[in-house]
Amino acid sequence: MNVELQKARVAFQGEAGAFSEAAAIQLLGDGITPVPRPTFDAAFRAIIEGAADALLVPVENSLAGSVVRVYDLLLESHLAIVAETILPIEMQLIACPGASLGDIRSVSSHPMALAQCERFFAAHPQWQRIAAEDTAGSVREVLGRGDKTHAAIAGRRAAEHYRGVILAESIQDNAENFTRFVLLLPTKEAAAMTNPVARKMSIAMRLAHRPGSLLAALEPFARHRVNMLKIESRPIHGQPWEYQFFLDLEAETPAPLEAALSEVRKATSQLRVLGLYPAARTA
Amino acid sequence: MNVELQKARVAFQGEAGAFSEAAAIQLLGDGITPVPRPTFDAAFRAIIEGAADALLVPVENSLAGSVVRVYDLLLESHLAIVAETILPIEMQLIACPGASLGDIRSVSSHPMALAQCERFFAAHPQWQRIAAEDTAGSVREVLGRGDKTHAAIAGRRAAEHYRGVILAESIQDNAENFTRFVLLLPTKEAAAMTNPVARKMSIAMRLAHRPGSLLAALEPFARHRVNMLKIESRPIHGQPWEYQFFLDLEAETPAPLEAALSEVRKATSQLRVLGLYPAARTA
Repeated sequence: MNVELQKARVAFQGEAGAFSEAAAIQLLGDGITPVPRPTFDAAFRAIIEGAADALLVPVENSLAGSVVRVYDLLLESHLAIVAETILPIEMQLIACPGASLGDIRSVSSHPMALAQCERFFAAHPQWQRIAAEDTAGSVREVLGRGDKTHAAIAGRRAAEHYRGVILAESIQDNAENFTRFVLLLPTKEAAAMTNPVARKMSIAMRLAHRPGSLLAALEPFARHRVNMLKIESRPIHGQPWEYQFFLDLEAETPAPLEAALSEVRKATSQLRVLGLYPAARTA
Repeated sequence: MNVELQKARVAFQGEAGAFSEAAAIQLLGDGITPVPRPTFDAAFRAIIEGAADALLVPVENSLAGSVVRVYDLLLESHLAIVAETILPIEMQLIACPGASLGDIRSVSSHPMALAQCERFFAAHPQWQRIAAEDTAGSVREVLGRGDKTHAAIAGRRAAEHYRGVILAESIQDNAENFTRFVLLLPTKEAAAMTNPVARKMSIAMRLAHRPGSLLAALEPFARHRVNMLKIESRPIHGQPWEYQFFLDLEAETPAPLEAALSEVRKATSQLRVLGLYPAARTA
């Protein structure tokens, strides 16, 4: 990763201490300046507004699937993917310093985080569950109030940021919970970053909605020995006869990717390269 | 739809008045007996436990994408899709009888519903937002408390069920918000239902993770003039060299579907038909 990015202002959706912030630090180190934003729309705007140099966003989670809104915003933007990182999503029970597990009476977090810890709640049926708008935000509230009977569920980064104590570790039901994040830069800057180990490519393409159109578009990839890591179709609102496809591709070198791509362009009504970047080492 | 299903006990995830309940009534009429369950896992168990005859679950939303957990549970189950229905997701501001818009001080709902109404909240900056675990559940709480300063955001069905009044209609930011639901029955019962207009098919298949394997599996569909409505890949945990694909297919008659399928079976390591059913009329 280049030196400037290690000191970049990095926008993300969520509060300080969010999983996205942890992913940004995992990828770029702790020399970055986090720029938290309440919504994905606001996070994408942070670069245009000059408040951030880069953007880190989740694109898929092993339990919840693709983050459709991020793909929509990426397509509308002038940003490109320059790196990816895969973060294990581990839920921690976080409380005020001095609190112990026996003190806890209520636990708050985002409903999705609460739902991912059903087994832990089943073991503590007397605890009240309280919904919150944000995982890290629920930790901020607990520490702000200083109530030792109240805990929150969020990632380790939130405990560190708000100086909470972790009363129980990795309480999520499913150990196989990973989120893949991508780092986005303005397209011109991304193009100037020549990365010799980049061999993964994300593309978006539009196809006519008729038998055989996808087959024709995929054939050049197979012929050039390009491996498909992900494919996903989405209907295009207001255009019932066209489909949008998102693909992740990988080859041993960039050459076959480029060769296949120039042929695929002829079979599609629209094709955009979302980024060429090094594949993350999987956990 | 057959007569017995119009009187079926239909399980779904969520509280009474949920969007899933509205979808079940849209598909089967209001003679059904709703069987609400707190989680998708519990909703799938309801049939095994003899508490329900059928199950209605969301499979994809136009803004949030596929419901990955439902596909996982469907693959583990002995259930099959027999019908689909597409429900517009319209958010209503619901309060106690006698309340007016000027009385409201706080609004609760699931964070996803709150996030889908950002423009409405921007027009009422003085309102406090309160997260809840369930949209319909937030209406139940508001009506239960009888506090005229508190409102909830949920669907029309929740207002009817808990006898709340709708203070503002269709307050969601995006008008293009649709969820596709499918009706599931035990596989044997599904097979016995011969539906002459069934021409849509959902399948799950596993492929070796190498260049060309997807192309070989898709080729018979194109040759038999089968139209692909949806394709989605998912990695298989613990099996890095195999991929799971979910496809929705459509043909003018079932014959080309069956012909293509018997050829595709030879190109896949595993293939399961999740259901053959009539396509929903889109809104």
